[in-house]
Amino acid sequence: MTFPVIGMVGGGQLARMTHEAGIPLGIRFRLLSDTPQDSAAQVVRDVVVGDYRDLDTLRDFARGCDVITFDHEHVPTEHLRVLEAEGIPVRPGPDALVHAQDKGVMRARLSEIGIPCPRHRIVADPADVTRFAGEGAAGEGAAREEGWPVVLKTVRGGYDGKGVWVVSSEAEAAEPFRAGVPVLAEEKVDYVRELAANVVRSPHGQAVAYPVVESIQVDGVCDTVIAPAPGLSPELSAHAQETALTIAKELGVTGHLAVELFETRDGRVLVNELAMRPHNSGHWTQDGAVTSQFANHLRAVLDLPLGDPRPRAPWTVMANVLGGDYPDMYQGYLHCMARDPRLKIHMYGKDVKPGRKVGHVNTYGDDLADVRERAAHAAAYLRGTITE
Amino acid sequence: MTFPVIGMVGGGQLARMTHEAGIPLGIRFRLLSDTPQDSAAQVVRDVVVGDYRDLDTLRDFARGCDVITFDHEHVPTEHLRVLEAEGIPVRPGPDALVHAQDKGVMRARLSEIGIPCPRHRIVADPADVTRFAGEGAAGEGAAREEGWPVVLKTVRGGYDGKGVWVVSSEAEAAEPFRAGVPVLAEEKVDYVRELAANVVRSPHGQAVAYPVVESIQVDGVCDTVIAPAPGLSPELSAHAQETALTIAKELGVTGHLAVELFETRDGRVLVNELAMRPHNSGHWTQDGAVTSQFANHLRAVLDLPLGDPRPRAPWTVMANVLGGDYPDMYQGYLHCMARDPRLKIHMYGKDVKPGRKVGHVNTYGDDLADVRERAAHAAAYLRGTITE
Repeated sequence: MTFPVIGMVGGGQLARMTHEAGIPLGIRFRLLSDTPQDSAAQVVRDVVVGDYRDLDTLRDFARGCDVITFDHEHVPTEHLRVLEAEGIPVRPGPDALVHAQDKGVMRARLSEIGIPCPRHRIVADPADVTRFAGEGAAGEGAAREEGWPVVLKTVRGGYDGKGVWVVSSEAEAAEPFRAGVPVLAEEKVDYVRELAANVVRSPHGQAVAYPVVESIQVDGVCDTVIAPAPGLSPELSAHAQETALTIAKELGVTGHLAVELFETRDGRVLVNELAMRPHNSGHWTQDGAVTSQFANHLRAVLDLPLGDPRPRAPWTVMANVLGGDYPDMYQGYLHCMARDPRLKIHMYGKDVKPGRKVGHVNTYGDDLADVRERAAHAAAYLRGTITE
Repeated sequence: MTFPVIGMVGGGQLARMTHEAGIPLGIRFRLLSDTPQDSAAQVVRDVVVGDYRDLDTLRDFARGCDVITFDHEHVPTEHLRVLEAEGIPVRPGPDALVHAQDKGVMRARLSEIGIPCPRHRIVADPADVTRFAGEGAAGEGAAREEGWPVVLKTVRGGYDGKGVWVVSSEAEAAEPFRAGVPVLAEEKVDYVRELAANVVRSPHGQAVAYPVVESIQVDGVCDTVIAPAPGLSPELSAHAQETALTIAKELGVTGHLAVELFETRDGRVLVNELAMRPHNSGHWTQDGAVTSQFANHLRAVLDLPLGDPRPRAPWTVMANVLGGDYPDMYQGYLHCMARDPRLKIHMYGKDVKPGRKVGHVNTYGDDLADVRERAAHAAAYLRGTITE
């Protein structure tokens, strides 16, 4: 057999959807999963259950693979260096991945290469946070004269709103330091909206840029993504894509890179966060682009030529389905499918817990208001927030 | 867990692609496969290896499932009646499926409900074939005055050109009778091309019709499918769709029904064959329609509302990839993906044997000649028929 074996670390929905994209390519997919019931483990044949933090587990897993890639960014950098030293391609590699794992390292490097970021620095304690706030009192982008509120982030470990605090006083600034992890302070950007400029880059340097999208967060979690971002000027869109491509190249990223951005009131973009894996802001591509982020991530990781990232419809919208009060996602299918025969449902096979990402829906068409309404309705109905 | 378990009998590529379509729906997929290496068995978690012809194997398999469906049509009708009697939904049911399994039964029923077919009857021996040829000497659609050539088919067991003979004399007519299976004789229709009118029907009677496609056969095997059939009049297209919908309804088909048709020189359609499962003539839908045949087959089998069958592009072409001299399909990816970033590859994970269906490619776009060329080139390159 000539088809390569891709080993993906992490059994969540990103791995599930990557496996789905790998099936038509004939690629053999191997999964390292925390449990046998993880989202991806339910649909993959070749599953190893084990702890990715254990080096021996990781090495044994990698030994059967032609390349290793990731559903999440928590694999210790040192372990990845061991794998690379033993001749197993790791994509993205640890030197790139550390910029998605450590926000302090990321901010330092982006500043080094001249990528616009919110004002930021590592802060030592709550008093230092107050000093940081003061440094920005008259600075660019500050929301208020006195520099509050301030955004505090642990440099490692955050996702979906966790590990991030918005504080308005020195007293409120105490909590983040309790984790014992370095804390990064950032100005709270007065943004008009959040965008994502996602790109895919392969080991031989080919890269493609997806249309820039608008990302709407609710309670720190992605709620809706609109592709392309409505009303975004071609100039700002191109600038956002070039920014993402530059980051991918300078950091040596291979695979999918999600660059989350703030669009400021005065029409600039500042980089918020990076993710080096398929990303929530790219799920729309499964139905809305010629080549999905999952298919292109696989192609990049395998050093194959990349697929066309262009949109297939004027508007595509993704709405996340979060767990609500109903444990049964399936019972909503009858209504949702009957109401919208064009609806594209993507469920993750995960147990429903309140607020947990259990799936998403994609809609597409010519009329943005209609496309948004269809996605929002389906997501709300499946969640149980509405009942008709 | 509330998501249903679909049991699919048969581990070929149709099951593989049906599982692929089931992943985003969160459906649990169970497979009864001949071997652990079958196309679908490589990518499905819940695989039972066993012989579908053994009733106990089939019953044990079905016991864990909410509904049974098929990758092929070889499951003995009597076994399916046992499953139904034991309360397990079988879709399509044996009463419908027999019309895809037995060409004699199919012809009789279609004639009964007034569906146009080639002139046909069961023939007892080679002399009877000569009589059949003579019956059509001056009849409608006969190719020659004397009624030869004649098409002979064993009523059960044929596919991809097997079990079908085109004979031009009584002497040539001897071979089909050696199988010991009843033989159906049909006039050789003087057709301008072959079409397929595929539909999906659910247990509560909802049905959708896909665009009618042109199907080009080479050596009795499907080579290329063009969607929609170029130059087909709206009237003949609607008539073909209505014919397929009528057959689905009258035969009580649930799931996907492929109706293969001849388009005659005088602008009529005659039914050639039926298949009650996803079909080669519908693979284009994976990239060219809003809802693929695989997704809609699943929805019908689960009695869910059906998805929109409309095309997403002006033209979509599928080209089969057959095994050639190269055992390595993967090495062709570099060239094919670089040449055409919009190419959609669908490989089956099967060992390459000459002439064997090992995958297909889909292309789509505005310019039919270009879309056809891209598909043909990729299929030929992967097969090894061309090398640049």
